[in-house]
This record gives sequence, C-alpha cells and structure tokens, in this order.
Amino acid sequence: MGTLAEQAARNLAAVREQKPLIHNITNYVVMNYTANALLAMGASPVMAHAHNEVEEMVSLAGALVLNIGTLTDEWIASMILAGKKAADLGKPVILDPVGSGATALRTDAAHRIIEQTSIRVIRGNASEILSLRHRDSMTKGVDSLHAVDEAAETAQVLARELETTLAITGPTDLITDGNRVIRVSNGHALMGYVTGTGCTATATIGAFLAVDPDPVSATATALAFFGLAGEVAAESAAAPGSFMTGMLDALYTITPEKLGSGARIEES
Amino acid sequence: MGTLAEQAARNLAAVREQKPLIHNITNYVVMNYTANALLAMGASPVMAHAHNEVEEMVSLAGALVLNIGTLTDEWIASMILAGKKAADLGKPVILDPVGSGATALRTDAAHRIIEQTSIRVIRGNASEILSLRHRDSMTKGVDSLHAVDEAAETAQVLARELETTLAITGPTDLITDGNRVIRVSNGHALMGYVTGTGCTATATIGAFLAVDPDPVSATATALAFFGLAGEVAAESAAAPGSFMTGMLDALYTITPEKLGSGARIEES
Amino acid sequence: MGTLAEQAARNLAAVREQKPLIHNITNYVVMNYTANALLAMGASPVMAHAHNEVEEMVSLAGALVLNIGTLTDEWIASMILAGKKAADLGKPVILDPVGSGATALRTDAAHRIIEQTSIRVIRGNASEILSLRHRDSMTKGVDSLHAVDEAAETAQVLARELETTLAITGPTDLITDGNRVIRVSNGHALMGYVTGTGCTATATIGAFLAVDPDPVSATATALAFFGLAGEVAAESAAAPGSFMTGMLDALYTITPEKLGSGARIEES
Repeated sequence: MGTLAEQAARNLAAVREQKPLIHNITNYVVMNYTANALLAMGASPVMAHAHNEVEEMVSLAGALVLNIGTLTDEWIASMILAGKKAADLGKPVILDPVGSGATALRTDAAHRIIEQTSIRVIRGNASEILSLRHRDSMTKGVDSLHAVDEAAETAQVLARELETTLAITGPTDLITDGNRVIRVSNGHALMGYVTGTGCTATATIGAFLAVDPDPVSATATALAFFGLAGEVAAESAAAPGSFMTGMLDALYTITPEKLGSGARIEES
Repeated sequence: MGTLAEQAARNLAAVREQKPLIHNITNYVVMNYTANALLAMGASPVMAHAHNEVEEMVSLAGALVLNIGTLTDEWIASMILAGKKAADLGKPVILDPVGSGATALRTDAAHRIIEQTSIRVIRGNASEILSLRHRDSMTKGVDSLHAVDEAAETAQVLARELETTLAITGPTDLITDGNRVIRVSNGHALMGYVTGTGCTATATIGAFLAVDPDPVSATATALAFFGLAGEVAAESAAAPGSFMTGMLDALYTITPEKLGSGARIEES
Repeated sequence: MGTLAEQAARNLAAVREQKPLIHNITNYVVMNYTANALLAMGASPVMAHAHNEVEEMVSLAGALVLNIGTLTDEWIASMILAGKKAADLGKPVILDPVGSGATALRTDAAHRIIEQTSIRVIRGNASEILSLRHRDSMTKGVDSLHAVDEAAETAQVLARELETTLAITGPTDLITDGNRVIRVSNGHALMGYVTGTGCTATATIGAFLAVDPDPVSATATALAFFGLAGEVAAESAAAPGSFMTGMLDALYTITPEKLGSGARIEES
C-alpha cells in the first residue's frame, strides 16, 4: 500500500510538471467538465473528433481517451481511426464504455473498438464491464446493476481474455490486469450525483498513463487521486452543485504529499 | 391550491424513490446542466440521439424530452423516430420548442414533431408557444415578445387544437390543457441569466411525468419545484454563476415537505 | 488611456441596454460557458450551426462569433455560409482560430474562413495568430509557444496583410489593426486553468462589437472587461472551480463605473 500511495504522489507531480496533452473523443455531456478537470489537475486537454483530424491530433498527445456516450456511427469510426494510430505510435488508449450493455449500438461499439484497436485500460461500472463479455447482459441506462464483489473474479478472467487492464468503479474501485488485483477506496457518495464523474475519472487515468507506463499503477493511483478530490470537496459541500465546483478546486489544490498520505490503495 | 401543492410533494418523493430514467434529445448548450439537474433532483438522465439507438433507448426510459435548440435535420429525424416509439409504448413525450418562430428550421421542426408524434406537454415562452399556431409569428432569438396574460386565452384554444398540455413560462407560468388553467408563481429573476433554465424546467416536467400520469398536475408541480429551487438559490446567491450552482444544490436539498409548503400553484 | 477606459464603460453600459443577440458557431466544450458569460454580461446568446439555419439566424444577430474548436467539414461550411451572409448585411464577424497551427484541418479552416468571408477581428494566442501567416508553424495543442512581445511586430504586418484587427491574448493582450497598437494588462493567471476563457473572451469581443463599430476599441475594451472579471473573481476564489463560477458572477456585477476605473488599456 505504501508503494502505490507513493507512486500516486509521484504520478501527480509528473502530470503537473509534464502537462501531458490528453486527446479526448468523448460525449457532449461531459466535455466541458472533463476539460476543466484535466486543466485543474495540471494536464492539457484537447477535444477533437473529425475523421480527418484525429490521427494528426493523437500524434501530438500523450494519451487518447475514448468515451462512447452520445454516440453515432461517425464518432465510432473516428475513435477506431484514432485508436489505431495511437497503437501504431505506442501511445496509451483508455476506453470508457458508457452505457455498454444498455443498447446494441453502445455494446457493439465497445466490442468493435476493443477488437480493432489496442486498449490499455477500460474503466466502467460493473454492468458496463460485464457487458464486454456477455452480449446478452442488460443494464439500466448508465447505472450499475451488479455489486463490485460479484464482478471481481469475472474481471480477472475478462482482463486476461481482453488482454487489458480493467477498472470497475463503485464505492470501492477494483483494478486488475488479470494477475494483480488492487482495490481503491477513496471517493464520496455525492460523486454519483454529478454527471461525468465516471467519464472524468477515465480522463484522469489517461493523464496518469501519460506519465506512468504501468497500466495497473497508473489506473489505481489516478482513481485514488480522483476519489480523494471527492472527499476533499465533500468537506465543504453538501449538495451536488457546490460539490462539482469543489471537485475542480480539489483537483487543483491537492498536493502530491496530500495524495501520498490520503490515497487508500490496497493490493490483494 | 392545497391539493396541487400536496401533489407536488408526492411527485418529488416519487421521483426520488423511483429514480426514473429520462431520455433527452436536447441541445449541446444545456446537456450538462440538464443532466446534472436531473441527477440532483433524484432522476436518472441519459442523452442519446443516434437514429440507430433512440428507439431502443426510449424503450428503457420513463419519459422522453425533445428540445430543438442547436438543431439539424438529422436530429429532427431522430426526435421523430424516438417520439413515435414512445407513443407506441405509451410513454410521455415533452417538447421544448426552443427558438420556434425565430427561424424556419426551428418552426418547421416544431410543427413536424407535433404532427408526427404524440406530445403530452409542450413548454416554452410565449413567443415559442404562439409560433406553434401562427407560421408568420416572429421572435427575437429565444426571448419572449408577448406577455403571459396576452397568451392565456390563445393558449387554451391552441391546447385544444393541438390536443396537448401547454406550459408558457415567464414571471408567472401558465399551464393549460384547454380546459383547466393553472398558474405557478414560483421562480426568481436570476433564472433568466442562466442558460438552459427553460430547457431544464422542461426536463423536470419529464421527470414528474414519469411518476404522475396527469399532464396538468405533473407540469404544474414540476414548474413549482423548479421555480422554488430558484428561490432557494437566490437566498445565498446574488449573481448568475453562484446562482446556477445554487440551483443544482437546491434541487437536491429541497424536501417534499418544503415543496409542499413552498409551491405557489393556483387553479382558476 | 483615459479615453479607452471611458469607452469601456460606455460599451458595457450599451451591451446591458441593447442586449445584442450574439450568434455563436462554436465548439462543444465551451458552448455552455460562453452562453452563460454572454447572458451574465447582459447580451443575448444563441448557438446555431445547421447549414439551413445559419443565414437566417445571423440576420437576426448583432454579431457573429466563429470558433473552430471541435471542428468538422460540415461546421466549416456552415461558418463560411454564415460569415458571407453577415458580410452582406454589414454585421461584424469575429474569428477564434482555436488550435490553428496544431492540425492541418484547423489551419486550413482558419485560412479558408478568412479568405472567403470578411472577418472584423481575430482573437487567439500567439501561436494561433502566427499560424495564420505561416502554414508551416506548429503549436502544441491550444497552448501558446511564443511570447506576446515576439509577436507584436509580426502582428502589425499580419493585420495589414489580412486587413483585419488582431488580438493576441496572454498575460498582456496585444490588439492591432496594423496601425494602432494597444495593450491590455487586465487578467489573472487562473484564467488559464478554466477551459473556454479564450473562447469566451472572443464572444465578449462579439458583444462589444455589436455596440461599438470601431474594431480596435471594441476589442480592447472587451478584453479589459473580461480580464477585470478574472481579477474580481480571484479576490474570492483561489482554485479553478470556484474561479470559473466567480467569473460569471463578476461579468454580471461589474458596473460600467468599476470598469472605467479598473480597465488597464495602454495605447503605444
């Protein structure tokens, strides 16, 4: 635990020093909040989705974040184009399969992106992650139907099948590459009342992956940082509006030292 | 008045208990704020607009909210597809004719959506609502040119013609299905300085319609709740930025009891 | 200096009195914040991008703001259509070449929009503005690589070549039409941690151009106003989340008198 909390502090310091450019192809709902969160933590966000721009843009970036909310066929095609280019260049790609399992378009898109590109990390709730395995799984919108614990063993098997690192987020986050299993218990219940906290957690993983090549430690430390921002925000906010403002403040004010002492990361 | 205020309290409690999924096909400007408002009040928002996804998504939802800001032909087609499916399934559809009357694209879109689907409630300002009758009506952008009082009788006639419930919002909101006429006087002037308050009022009607089958009482109680959130926010905010944050907070903190005592709904 | 500060006060008062409709064709990331900023300062925003709506919409507007973030070919075509119509009607058009120089799509789009329409003012950082001259210039995302001072002489030459007014923003803003050179030193470092502050500065220029026909004074006074809002926000906010809320508040609360005394505009 000590080691990963220290790594969290190092990763946050590296993001602030290197200010990696994070290329997001993400949904309309969360674009503004995601960009502001990346800026607040010290990274440099760019949003670009045109098929005739994404390959050039990803070449400039330290990581690529793909998010399938508010999806259309054109956006899926751009995500795959950008993802292939990122793979060619050895840049990390992170997928957020928003609503996968809820509709065929989203489930199919998630499967196609995984098959046709090289995804370093996938972050979702239990339903979304489980939908990547079972085409017959159903979720209610973007909410999770399954407890994290039920998903733990399945996640290990699935991570090996998909040859990626999975992050299943909830009250406790579970991170696994099929071998290592890590749990992060930072966070606050109000995060569920702000749209895009999941999507922005994914973008935070992107920023940490741009400075830490190990997908398991980058993901666990990013989620600890993002969860700690929720805890800090909740110290002075008791409702979603001021809480979402407070989270942006916390992503800016949390120091590497504070993260090193506040990260609750446990490897089993 | 007592009865509708009590119904407001019951509807808010039901939204918080049932957490209905509200499917929004809405404009880019307000997507984030609308989603956050729905989450704050206890509902579950989803935004999806692809022609090959909307029918499946609306099947999962408790209500469908159509909003014609930042419109294109593709989005109109998706709105009509989703609206028809909702009608087939007996799910309520709410229309926000943003800017109808200002441009031909928006006026025509509003007319087509009304003709080709089955709209339970339409909410707009006086100009927008009046434009649904007169194709030669003109509005200046999304501002209202006509006082609510001028529109009252016209609204009753129009509601009967369109076989729907109309909500004309302004300093006092007017709700009518052609027979009943209800006025809601909750609200605050700062709401006019935050983009998307009208659109988000419409989404709030969607959430209340998902738990209250009576379009007149669902609409009146939703507008009282949303207006009361504005009043509560204004207690601690005197400018638009902190006011818009405060409204999200209020949508979360207002209890059914507070709404029951604070709703100002009058039936004439 | 006295004269331009007084003009700033007059322009702000005129925006609040005339409430000009500002037509924005802008990127998804900043639409909400830009609309809220325009509302807060007293203008009336509308966002519309459909090829079959933009000409009609711009006919109703006092100014047209074009912003090339989150660009596609369809949006470029709409921008050019709207820009040509605005030129025909003698309405001011303001261009924000977001990311020009970073990718070919954006650089080419900026060049095409400038060539095919009549741009009154262009606002960007030094890299973006310099990319309008040199097709081989490169920028890292939307960050500026060049100091404002290096760009000053180049800007004068370029403004004459492009027959427009250029605003290069940074710690000190430089405004030139090729003859006059004005510097504005209002602003705060936290503005760099909020996405869309540049884009929203551009929209503010749009609002001021709708009431002040002189592009140089409209631009300088708008940037002084927007920068002063940053200074006022920083008095009560020390981190980006509360700062971005505070800026919206300040755009609403700053009086013409306060702007007249707080504007730091210097003509050389």
